Amino acid sequence: MAPSDESMLDAPSTNSPPDDSLSDASDSPFHAFLDNFPLPSPDEGSIPIMVNSCTGKMASSVIIETLFHELYIIPVSFGSEAMSGQTYDISSKKFYMQGPSNREIVLQHLLAKYPDMIVVDYTLSAALDANVELYCKFGVPFVLGTNGGNRDLMLKTIQNSQSYALVSSQMGKQTVAFLGVLEYMSSRFPGMFAGYTLQVKESLDESKAKSLITMKAASVFFKRLGVAINMNQVESLRDPIQQRDVVEIKEEHLSCHEYYVFHLTSSDKMAHFEFQIKVSGRSMYAESTIDAVKFLNKKIKERHGKKLYNMLDVLRECEQVI
Amino acid sequence: MAPSDESMLDAPSTNSPPDDSLSDASDSPFHAFLDNFPLPSPDEGSIPIMVNSCTGKMASSVIIETLFHELYIIPVSFGSEAMSGQTYDISSKKFYMQGPSNREIVLQHLLAKYPDMIVVDYTLSAALDANVELYCKFGVPFVLGTNGGNRDLMLKTIQNSQSYALVSSQMGKQTVAFLGVLEYMSSRFPGMFAGYTLQVKESLDESKAKSLITMKAASVFFKRLGVAINMNQVESLRDPIQQRDVVEIKEEHLSCHEYYVFHLTSSDKMAHFEFQIKVSGRSMYAESTIDAVKFLNKKIKERHGKKLYNMLDVLRECEQVI
Repeated sequence: MAPSDESMLDAPSTNSPPDDSLSDASDSPFHAFLDNFPLPSPDEGSIPIMVNSCTGKMASSVIIETLFHELYIIPVSFGSEAMSGQTYDISSKKFYMQGPSNREIVLQHLLAKYPDMIVVDYTLSAALDANVELYCKFGVPFVLGTNGGNRDLMLKTIQNSQSYALVSSQMGKQTVAFLGVLEYMSSRFPGMFAGYTLQVKESLDESKAKSLITMKAASVFFKRLGVAINMNQVESLRDPIQQRDVVEIKEEHLSCHEYYVFHLTSSDKMAHFEFQIKVSGRSMYAESTIDAVKFLNKKIKERHGKKLYNMLDVLRECEQVI
Repeated sequence: MAPSDESMLDAPSTNSPPDDSLSDASDSPFHAFLDNFPLPSPDEGSIPIMVNSCTGKMASSVIIETLFHELYIIPVSFGSEAMSGQTYDISSKKFYMQGPSNREIVLQHLLAKYPDMIVVDYTLSAALDANVELYCKFGVPFVLGTNGGNRDLMLKTIQNSQSYALVSSQMGKQTVAFLGVLEYMSSRFPGMFAGYTLQVKESLDESKAKSLITMKAASVFFKRLGVAINMNQVESLRDPIQQRDVVEIKEEHLSCHEYYVFHLTSSDKMAHFEFQIKVSGRSMYAESTIDAVKFLNKKIKERHGKKLYNMLDVLRECEQVI
């Protein structure tokens, strides 16, 4: 699953102000910020992206990753009420932080300036539904790489809106591909590993402790392949000392890694197949996020009929996009 | 690749006797054998199989494996001229060995007794073409799991014949599946691992020292995935001591194993993906051979239009067949 270690975007109050209040904030700190830092126009062909919750580790990784790509980072980010009106620096870029109360005014302003903008949002589960509602209301396209929220409702909201969106609980392109391959194998060769036993080991850092999306998806596919994963028998490492000593996670990655080993053994113990995924840090997710942004931008330009995508869609077109 | 450690079936003389000489051998040692051991009729529903070159390790593994399946082993096997007319015991079953000179008479006799018979043939490369020619001449279906021979000619011969055949250089069902999955991944997600480096390790026992079929197939697929395998940089272990100490092949499997590790590392060294296959002994191949026999029997009964198959075809139907 994608790291979801971001500072939470507060969900807006259910008594949010009606639309006609949008013009009230012309003297807000946001406009004061704009007076000092007028929004520049991006270079021709450069995709403007707004990275929300930029104080979080995942969002800031994406911002750093954009240095190597043709993207323009809008210097405004949604964040907590506590930080609202303040600025925050990432790689010597200054970001204006907007709390929940007046996000709609800010978003309107940005959309007027950057009609092609795409939002990147890595946030905690609790804020997801409200964020999706906001983006959909304004028809702004977005890439959302966090697990949680009311997924059914969220996807319905998107489908009823004008927004293009890419939603994936697992943004790591190669990990998604691994699951895609397992899915293919299980539909093409069901029962292939019948009689085999499956030993599963995983090591995730504490921020991902409760997220088992990858493992659950894998278990469905292995079951179709004829091998049941007993989720209680999965060897789950959460202790940093064991993570370092047993599965050789480097010291500097103990705080951010995901590691899976699927080991299949034939009934006579003579044949062994093993699949390992070991991802450290956030760069793979950040790169995949940029791929997702470029993919979504392409779909918008093509005025593609389909509006809701996931990482598998990106993978299918990765040669053209990346 | 499948083990090809069998005693060679001598290729028949190019001046083989014309068909009208077939009746000459009615007083041969073969008929003397039949006088003492009349061929029994198999149980209803049991598939009669003739396992040629049964003195070889792979063929005898198949014979042992049939003990657990609904197959009837015909107690006659083609072998070298030196052993012709002798009997050979495997698991307290007695096999009559027929050398190259009068194989056609024996085959005719067996086909009259067992019209549904299927031949299983694991033999050395040099004898393959002649064997295929013989089976095709008599329209007898066969499973051939050895690498080598003139593959183009062989496949053409089969296609021009009435024989159903399953030909595969790699009989290991799961290893074939692994290659099938790599093929799928490379056609579906080309360039997916662009920027990654690939480290390849293999350990094969001496009998497989020159067979690089699996590796070559894998390298084609990885190339499409965006990662070149430099075949010169493949770490190939052939020394039994290193095989034991470096890749932990058990002492008893040093003489029969295949082990492949494909390790992908992202350019920033933060993401790693590893695929391992470690097969020891011959049981996986023997089981897959039985699957292939059952599959071919099914296709013959269905009078399927397609006559030439490989292990991927078996895999695709493994739920129904196995």
